[in-house]
Order: sequence, then structure tokens, then C-alpha cells
Amino acid sequence: MDISQLGEFGLIQRIKENLDTPAPGLVRGIGDDAAVFESPSGMEIVITCDAQVEGVHFLTQFMTPEQIGRKAAAINISDIAAMGARPTFMLVSLGLPKTTPVSFVDGLYKGFREECGSFGIAIIGGNMAQCPERAFIDITLLGQVEKGRALYRSTARPRDLVAVSGALGGSAAGLALLLNPEIQVDEEVRKAVFQAHVCPKPKVDLGRLLSVSGLVTAALDVSDGAAQDLGHICEESKIGATLRADKIPLSPSCQAVAQALGRDPLEFALFGGEDYELLFTFPEANKAGLEFRLADSGFAMTIIGRMEPGEPVVRITDPAGKDWNTHAAGWNHFQG
Amino acid sequence: MDISQLGEFGLIQRIKENLDTPAPGLVRGIGDDAAVFESPSGMEIVITCDAQVEGVHFLTQFMTPEQIGRKAAAINISDIAAMGARPTFMLVSLGLPKTTPVSFVDGLYKGFREECGSFGIAIIGGNMAQCPERAFIDITLLGQVEKGRALYRSTARPRDLVAVSGALGGSAAGLALLLNPEIQVDEEVRKAVFQAHVCPKPKVDLGRLLSVSGLVTAALDVSDGAAQDLGHICEESKIGATLRADKIPLSPSCQAVAQALGRDPLEFALFGGEDYELLFTFPEANKAGLEFRLADSGFAMTIIGRMEPGEPVVRITDPAGKDWNTHAAGWNHFQG
Repeated sequence: MDISQLGEFGLIQRIKENLDTPAPGLVRGIGDDAAVFESPSGMEIVITCDAQVEGVHFLTQFMTPEQIGRKAAAINISDIAAMGARPTFMLVSLGLPKTTPVSFVDGLYKGFREECGSFGIAIIGGNMAQCPERAFIDITLLGQVEKGRALYRSTARPRDLVAVSGALGGSAAGLALLLNPEIQVDEEVRKAVFQAHVCPKPKVDLGRLLSVSGLVTAALDVSDGAAQDLGHICEESKIGATLRADKIPLSPSCQAVAQALGRDPLEFALFGGEDYELLFTFPEANKAGLEFRLADSGFAMTIIGRMEPGEPVVRITDPAGKDWNTHAAGWNHFQG
Repeated sequence: MDISQLGEFGLIQRIKENLDTPAPGLVRGIGDDAAVFESPSGMEIVITCDAQVEGVHFLTQFMTPEQIGRKAAAINISDIAAMGARPTFMLVSLGLPKTTPVSFVDGLYKGFREECGSFGIAIIGGNMAQCPERAFIDITLLGQVEKGRALYRSTARPRDLVAVSGALGGSAAGLALLLNPEIQVDEEVRKAVFQAHVCPKPKVDLGRLLSVSGLVTAALDVSDGAAQDLGHICEESKIGATLRADKIPLSPSCQAVAQALGRDPLEFALFGGEDYELLFTFPEANKAGLEFRLADSGFAMTIIGRMEPGEPVVRITDPAGKDWNTHAAGWNHFQG
């Protein structure tokens, strides 16, 4: 059965039936002109949106509808995590060809529900539109954070240390492998990088910890590649940064894939993107306190650079302080 | 110049420069992982989203980018108006082919700014994605309303009167004329229905008045056609309704276009959609009070039917109470 047989309202009804659950603060969910919710006093509301387009951001030959749904949600959850906020409510706007199987929409929503369920997020609204050639999934996600506690990109200061959670490069290595399936790698490596690419884990608990700690000056999530993302902090904070290429934490599977492809794993880690780890800055004086708190909660961080006074550019250096030689660039949605 | 030459970040920078204005309650707008705002105590937050797809919801040969932007915003503002809320913040998610001229995006944002400006709405975030074949514009709009004062679809009661603001059918007549340009009508008629179709006026002040009055039981905006929209109230309120075909307020230009096309103007008014008037219900005892308040603020309303106990269906009748004979149906995004 395709969605044109079910019709718009049949489809909405089908979705609604699986989502009708109460949520704290929710006054009215799906079924009206708009959703209504309350914000607890003392909290600020955080909101983000991100669209995924079939064939551009996801390929149906590589991912199940459920995986596509999970990832579309996860990407937005990661943005809320990067603000130090707790995600609360989600709206889903779908563009779908008329011939879309109902099972595709069911799978997407299964993925949304799974991903949202693990973070206590309620799906409270959305929209359905026809899009002839390809599907798009545009998600709006809300969150909340204690007043004055949101983590911004614009508040890094010169001499702050730059750290990143987890290891980088796995997602980009996974994509490279999907696009070059003939490359031979260990099955475990293939699984690990595919998982990193398809099923990113938003760092909500870590973002909350960083926010609550009061020790961090700026933060964002690694979506465009660590180098370009640090560049966003530089631009918004109006200062520069130095990134030590030799300090970048590389995922072992990323290294294995890079070797098999004859490429530098740092390319994946610095310019690949979609790792959805958090990148954050803090004064050197807060380093020990932060390390203690992170370790106490089972999180890792690696110091990879330092903010610098001057022009808002990222200099990537080798251990000797010389420029690391590269011409690669991060992800740009309209180039290439 | 097309957007691939400017690049994603160049495009975002260009948009941001024109939008960097402070707004009440806004803590952080465009430029971070998410926007941040505060909600005044005693208020509930209302949120809606609606996507417009090129060639499906708008045709670039009939509308300027500015008009497309205005209408995409207006449609969402109308949903917030139908909740009785005041619109506050907007997020814009665009899907664009690489070859999109920068002037198209500039025009869209000019339209967004104009429409938002007249309602005091701040554009606080968004997303840019590549979509190869056609543009889509997905807007998320927030609003606020006094706690407990939102107007829902689910709260109409049997015997409530059903009223509609303004005259219906103009927008659908405008679309019919655009699709049949060879039809001869008076130039003023053509202008009027084209204006109704291209440049709907969301009824924010009326929605606020209905909410504040406390006299109304349910409300929505007329987007799918008055008959289908009243059907939404029936479904959500789990009761029926009777609609008097002879009571429907028809716009004079809609009548002129229908005559020129040899069609029944009621088809446009009942099943055409996109009028963006408000349709609302209230107990008969509140009729005089409501009429007084509306007239006092320069608003018109026409009573077009009544809610009925029983199955959630809309019966359309002639003055004699007989079924009005039609097989036309409202707008369905995936059929046809």
C-alpha cells in the first residue's frame, strides 16, 4: 500500500495513534492547528531544526527507514545536547512522493519513537507534504535548560583549551566504505564505522554535565568536521584557534578504513563530519575539575587545541608547531 | 550568482545580516546549534510547522520569491491565529537546488521579513539543505497565549453555532483563474482573487479577540475548505455538524470567476481551501456578546451552521434542510 491510497488524513491518523502519550508540560499534541506546551519557570527554551533529503543526506539503499528516522532525530538531539539542554518536544515535517510505501513512513516513525523514547522526547506535531521526486525529513526539536546555562559558540576566550569527547572519524570512514564497498576490511571494522555513520549517539548527558558544571566557556557538536566546527566557534567568538593534528583522537576503525583506502585518517577526523561528539572550550584552570567530573560520569575528553587571540581562523599544526599540510575542506551543502 | 557560488555559510551569513534584530524574550537567535528564548510566566507556548513545496504548493511562474515567502509565513501565522495565540518566533528550513539564484533566497527572506514584521515575529533560526529538483520551504512558528486560553478543535459542543469570519472562495477562485488564464473576467475581479490566493491575511487580531473573549468553544483556520475544516472540528470534538450551503458568505469576485468558469461558487467556498479565515463555534447564548465584540473591533462573522450530536460528519443542507448535492472533496495532499 502506498500513501496515496491511505490519504493524508489516514496517514496522520495512523501516526497519531502510535504517539498519543502524555508528556510533562505538554498541553496539546498532534491533532490541532498547533501544539501547546508549558515551560517551567526558571528555564529557557532551546529550539533547532534540521532537514535530511533523500539521496543527499541519506541513501535508502544503505539504510532502513527506521535507521533513517533514528538518525534524523539524533542529529537534532545532538544540537540540543550541544546547547547543554535537555530535549523535550519534537515536530516532524515530511515531504513524500505519492508512491511512498506506507511501510516507509511506519519505519521512519518507529525510528523517531525509538530515538525519542530513549531521551524522553514527545513527538507533538508535524506536517505532511507531497514532494514528487524524493523524500525529505525536516525535524524541529525543542529543549530546555536552566536560565543562563545554555552553552554557546560565541563565548570562547583566548587561551581556552579546546577538547573533544570520544573519538573522531568513524562516521566519515563509514560513509567512505559505503561508497567504496569493494574495499576489503575486517568485518568488525566495517560494522563499527557503519554503526558510527548510521546510528550516531547524541551526547545529551555529557552536554547537561558540561552545562551544570559551569566550567565550560563554549560548545558545539561535531557535525561538519572538527576543523570546520572549531572554525564556527572562532567566527562566533571572534578569536582564532590552533588545532594539534597529532592530538586528534582517531577511532581505531577509522584508522583501519583509512589504511585500506590509502587515505590519511586525519582527513576523516578533521574534515569528515557527522561524529556528533561535543567539542568544547574551557580555561586551563578548569581542566582538572572538568576531567574529574567527566571521569566520574564515565565520559572521556581529549584536549586537541587552544583558542588564540587574533583572526577567527583555525590553524592546524604538527607537534613542531608547523602548519599541517592539507587542502581538504569540511562539508558544504551547496558545493561540489 | 547561484547559491553554490556563495556556499552554505556565505548564504547563512547573508541571511543573518538582515535578521539580527533583538526581540522580546529572545536570548539567542541565528548562529548557534539552536536558538534560545524565554517564555513569560502565565503563558503557554504554541508551535506549528508547515512545508510548501515548489510545483506542489507554489508555482514560481505565478508568484515572485517575495510573494512565496510571504505566503509560506502567512500560512503558519494563520495556524497560530487559529489557536488564539500571538505569534512570536519563526524558524525557516529551506531545501534548495544548487542552481538556485541567490536572488530567489533574497526574495524569499524579503517576504518572510515583511510578513513577520507586520506581526512582530522574529526569525530566530533555520536550516539550509540541498534538494536537487525543487525548492521546499518548511516553516516552524511559535506563539504564546495566556494559560488555558488556547482555542482548540476538540472542544465544540452539540448545538453550538458555527461561524466564519470574512468571505470564502476567493483563494480557490484565484487558483482556478491562474490555471485557466484564457477565461475572461473583469480586471478587478482577477486582481482580487489573485490577491486572495497569493497574499492571504492571517487573522491574528481576530484570533486574539476570540481567545480573550472567552465566548468561543472551538476554532481553526480555513485551509482545506470550510466543509473539510468543519469536519476536523467534528472529528476532534467527536460530534456532528450541519452546514447551510445558502448561508456561506461568498466573495463577490469568487462569484464572478465561478460564473465565467461555469462552476458553482460554493465549490470554491466549501471545498477550495486556503481562505485563511477563522471558523469557530460558540453557544447560542454567546451570539449577541460575540457579535457586539467583533463589530466593535471591525470584524465580521457569518453564522453558517450548527454542531449536532451524533457521528462526526458534516451534513451540508439547502434552506429546506435537504442534503446539498455534491461529490466534490476538500484538498488532500496525496490524492489526485
